Amino acid sequence: MNDSVVARLVQELGKDAVLTDPDVTAAYSRDMMPLAPYGSPVAVVLPTDVAGVQATVRACADAGVPIVPRGAGSGLSGAANAVDGCVVLVLTKLDRIVEIDAGNRIAVVQPGVVNLDFRNAVEKDGLFYPPDPSSYDWCTIGGNLSTNAGGLCCVKYGVTTDSVLGLEVVLADGSVLRTGRRTVKGVAGYDLAKLFVGSEGTLGVITEATVALKPLPQAPATLVAGFPATAAAGDAVARVVREGLVPSLLEIMDSTSIKAAENHLKTDLGTGSNCQALLLAQSDTGGEAARRELAVLEQICTDSGADMVYATDDLAEGRMLLQARRVVLTALEHYGVWLTDDVCVPRTRIAELISGCQQIGEDVGLRIAVVGHAGDGNMHPTIVYSPDSEDEFARARVAFDRILEVGLSLGGTVTGEHGVGKIKREWLEREIGPVGMRVHREIKRALDPGNLFNPGSMFSL
Amino acid sequence: MNDSVVARLVQELGKDAVLTDPDVTAAYSRDMMPLAPYGSPVAVVLPTDVAGVQATVRACADAGVPIVPRGAGSGLSGAANAVDGCVVLVLTKLDRIVEIDAGNRIAVVQPGVVNLDFRNAVEKDGLFYPPDPSSYDWCTIGGNLSTNAGGLCCVKYGVTTDSVLGLEVVLADGSVLRTGRRTVKGVAGYDLAKLFVGSEGTLGVITEATVALKPLPQAPATLVAGFPATAAAGDAVARVVREGLVPSLLEIMDSTSIKAAENHLKTDLGTGSNCQALLLAQSDTGGEAARRELAVLEQICTDSGADMVYATDDLAEGRMLLQARRVVLTALEHYGVWLTDDVCVPRTRIAELISGCQQIGEDVGLRIAVVGHAGDGNMHPTIVYSPDSEDEFARARVAFDRILEVGLSLGGTVTGEHGVGKIKREWLEREIGPVGMRVHREIKRALDPGNLFNPGSMFSL
Repeated sequence: MNDSVVARLVQELGKDAVLTDPDVTAAYSRDMMPLAPYGSPVAVVLPTDVAGVQATVRACADAGVPIVPRGAGSGLSGAANAVDGCVVLVLTKLDRIVEIDAGNRIAVVQPGVVNLDFRNAVEKDGLFYPPDPSSYDWCTIGGNLSTNAGGLCCVKYGVTTDSVLGLEVVLADGSVLRTGRRTVKGVAGYDLAKLFVGSEGTLGVITEATVALKPLPQAPATLVAGFPATAAAGDAVARVVREGLVPSLLEIMDSTSIKAAENHLKTDLGTGSNCQALLLAQSDTGGEAARRELAVLEQICTDSGADMVYATDDLAEGRMLLQARRVVLTALEHYGVWLTDDVCVPRTRIAELISGCQQIGEDVGLRIAVVGHAGDGNMHPTIVYSPDSEDEFARARVAFDRILEVGLSLGGTVTGEHGVGKIKREWLEREIGPVGMRVHREIKRALDPGNLFNPGSMFSL
Repeated sequence: MNDSVVARLVQELGKDAVLTDPDVTAAYSRDMMPLAPYGSPVAVVLPTDVAGVQATVRACADAGVPIVPRGAGSGLSGAANAVDGCVVLVLTKLDRIVEIDAGNRIAVVQPGVVNLDFRNAVEKDGLFYPPDPSSYDWCTIGGNLSTNAGGLCCVKYGVTTDSVLGLEVVLADGSVLRTGRRTVKGVAGYDLAKLFVGSEGTLGVITEATVALKPLPQAPATLVAGFPATAAAGDAVARVVREGLVPSLLEIMDSTSIKAAENHLKTDLGTGSNCQALLLAQSDTGGEAARRELAVLEQICTDSGADMVYATDDLAEGRMLLQARRVVLTALEHYGVWLTDDVCVPRTRIAELISGCQQIGEDVGLRIAVVGHAGDGNMHPTIVYSPDSEDEFARARVAFDRILEVGLSLGGTVTGEHGVGKIKREWLEREIGPVGMRVHREIKRALDPGNLFNPGSMFSL
């Protein structure tokens, strides 16, 4: 059966679009999440247009061969990981920016376009595509859509779904659904576009998106504040929310992250040796308004007990300050390999989550660094373990689950932006319960009755 | 069968919650759209809690009696209109604001709460619930959710779905689905909440919503500009979009609307006799920023050919200026009864839509006034006809459809915010095509296999 599906794919898509050498296909068999299981694909297919995607879907549907769609593979949930005997459908060659309509502030883009390339392209027209996951210099729009990716700017500009107006999707029978619209409003029928966004490739293959763009913000002014206690930083975040501020970035780093970044950058962040948490904030409202916004932020930090606050509207200096946040994961590699978790809690509960993670780190005897998007409560506790120790890996896995437990107990969700994939299936069930699971299965069966797309990812039928 | 379902409803919900007197139930049998068909319900049920909703759903499911859910009945698509032999499920007695969590800028609200009451309640905490349909002083949150309602503030703050974090929904088997979350981000599973929002009561009964709130904006500054040609006003709107302005309100009135408002208010709007279009804009960024934003808007209007521009940061004066926009529908009643349409076009095509409507008005020999949310391209051409003339009503119906035709031809959608309901079913099919319709039916069958909820609204199975 597998030989015949490969032969058909080669016939329909051409030899160059179908990879079967196991050494080559292995490179497409998993994403960046070390915990997730992965299998061996029978082939990796790289179509260059929607017809090629349709041909792949039809060939696999006829042969009963599952399809795992993927983009660049920057995911952190194993959602793009191959299952044994599947066809991995790589969308990176559907890589055209079809249209930028500056007059209506919208664009039409294919899934294989790299996030940063798309951002740069629309910026030339004075426009802004907000979603900016940390991997924005290599992840693709298709992966962003499938995971409903977030990033640092979400606190002000929302996540991927908030930018999506319409989609083109290849369905399980190979037909093409065009859903949504090119207008900024519209209620003609169910909001199918937002159903496919974040469905992790389980309902169809997204082959094009129409997205709303925002005006390009002003160059950001930046503030950094050091706190002698995590709770004080948490208070500051809560007050930022409470007092109605909407900074364009509001990040938090715990003491472990700060030390790792300082060590890596071989610099002192100026926080003093007793610093337990760092807040980084930006305002992109420009000029006087940004200065006013940062002044209020500064006052809130000071009132909450910060013993160091520094603000600048120098762009290069701001970028340098932000660098401390951006290097944390790389910096942690000094101590071992890392496993990053993803929980989102109400913004008033951030300090509790961080201290919970510290406790878990002590309990399991591993270093856990917490960085996160404080402005929306989306935290990434990151567990460091030795790549050579099975025991440490097992303890890392325990810590990973205990962090989710704490996140749920604080009224949060088990994934803020990375997704469920192949690592949080049991946690999805725990979070949404049996009725929620039943509705998920009903929708999956309705749209993909043969369980063709990404079977076993997010949940099992 | 109908007698037995009524008996069961009375038994489970109490006599006072079940209305069967035809003179009384008639008042619950239709919304505000004169074109839409409506039938006679066998009963009208007014539960006061989710258990009452569940009991109603189970009783009707067992008896095979369709359910038409409704709120205040302010809808403009007939989505809440009864079908013969149905039970109308009125949600207005689930009217509690369950929680306002100012620290996390979220609230939990039941569907029967009136939009304005909710706005006022959160405002006391310095918070803002953006969706503001014109009927905001009597429409309910449940209806807003079911239609994904918009309003005047959408241009800056989005539509209802953009505020929804989570929902409680009674499904077709009477079970309760709690979906979504209390955090501002989250990707645990499909975005079911945004699937139910805008589904017009065809998939389940929303019994509670968790919504994100925004900081209360500053008091708005207001600008009004008169143009000697519709195209010039359209150019101004396109330039506002193109130059990256995001006013908190940007409305347009055509000459027919202006004259009706002037006649009704017995005042001269100061536009001169040759005024063909009026733009009304507001900025709620406050102080110097608002003045700067209005100055840019003023320049754009002048450059586009406005022969009258007036700006004020006086709140009372701004409200008075806006009054001209708000009274248009009432003002049109001077000439007859009206039928308001709802199309959304790309923002660069607004002037073409307005001139298209003027042509249609001439062709059918009826007055058509166009008002709309220019900032997002959502136009409400409103056809005036005599209530006593069947012929005029027939011509109004022709005009209604021809307006949709023009909207589609300009790359727009047949409904920007009112919904499909029972008047635009064939237009939904025309806009989204056979594959889109198939997916709609697959989802409907998956979640409501007995076609219990609002059958025949939006589309037929």
